[in-house]
Amino acid sequence: MKKFLPSLDALAHELARLPGIGPKAAQRMGFFLLQDSAEDPQRLAGLLTDLRKKAVFCRICGVWTEENPCWICDGNSRDHAEICVVQGMNELLAIEKAGTYQGTYHVLKGLLSPLDGKGPETLSVEELLSRVSQGEIREVILALDPTLEGEATTRYLSLRLRNMKVRVTRIASGVPVGGDLAYVDELTLSRSMLDRREVEVESDDQG
Amino acid sequence: MKKFLPSLDALAHELARLPGIGPKAAQRMGFFLLQDSAEDPQRLAGLLTDLRKKAVFCRICGVWTEENPCWICDGNSRDHAEICVVQGMNELLAIEKAGTYQGTYHVLKGLLSPLDGKGPETLSVEELLSRVSQGEIREVILALDPTLEGEATTRYLSLRLRNMKVRVTRIASGVPVGGDLAYVDELTLSRSMLDRREVEVESDDQG
Repeated sequence: MKKFLPSLDALAHELARLPGIGPKAAQRMGFFLLQDSAEDPQRLAGLLTDLRKKAVFCRICGVWTEENPCWICDGNSRDHAEICVVQGMNELLAIEKAGTYQGTYHVLKGLLSPLDGKGPETLSVEELLSRVSQGEIREVILALDPTLEGEATTRYLSLRLRNMKVRVTRIASGVPVGGDLAYVDELTLSRSMLDRREVEVESDDQG
Repeated sequence: MKKFLPSLDALAHELARLPGIGPKAAQRMGFFLLQDSAEDPQRLAGLLTDLRKKAVFCRICGVWTEENPCWICDGNSRDHAEICVVQGMNELLAIEKAGTYQGTYHVLKGLLSPLDGKGPETLSVEELLSRVSQGEIREVILALDPTLEGEATTRYLSLRLRNMKVRVTRIASGVPVGGDLAYVDELTLSRSMLDRREVEVESDDQG
């Protein structure tokens, strides 16, 4: 089919690079932008440029932030003796959303992946070790994905932290709350058996 | 929750105006754009500005196009004695994709909607009438949505075209090909009864 708007394809091609945007959605978005007179092309560019200019990595935990250090590392609202190690900002935000953790974070900026040539030097490992050796750190909680890469990274960090005077823990893997045992994969089920805990019974029940 | 990146919210708010993009997808897109160093903020703006500059309405049929008249109205590849009236460009592209229609189009730029204050003067009705009165037009095919607005527009255009020497038809409504009779709504089913046609039997079968 001949094209009415070759320039729309160029714009759609650029938009299709965005996560979760397929070619059809990109065409629809481009067509909307063409017709939406309220949309100033320079405004989108300006907002992105502004974000790029303001966003930096927190010099303590490494999270993307506009205030440096970030609001968690700065001030006394959080327990600075606890460091929760996460892969990236999305994982940090997920834990913040859960709302129970009151310590600080360390953003690794990825996971070890030898097959992709991602070694420890690509992650902020030395920054973590330096924080642990210099500060009054009580516990490092490794909160990485229960995947091959996450496991490898957890093991690597545990080894590096072993001789430092700090408690090293990892978040529990297991059957998701509300999940159906019958449909949970074998690895998750095995892990949930290994990570099993004593049932806590309230003393009242014991009579 | 305090914000790490207030500027990301501003960008995400702008991106969330795009069709089919919710607040979460907009945040994800904004975060991607922040981190994607290959993405030059000015490039997106440039592509959109370029599209805006080049895209015009075809002076004959009213479709968005970069060549004026568009490739359908220009030249002899199509039957200029047939005009298919569509609501907008998306409907035109859908018919083109079906690939059987060989005539030209007329883009109405909307449908009548008295409740929203959209009268005939907001549509390209006069342009259509002028094409029909000036050209050698054999047939006008009304291909509008089988909705209240579409029906009202079809009726209005039929009335306006009644006294002109041109055949006026409408596309058939009915059960979609591959659709299930049991799940088709009553209006569609009623319409498919009204629009029923003789079954064409091949003469061989008659013996």
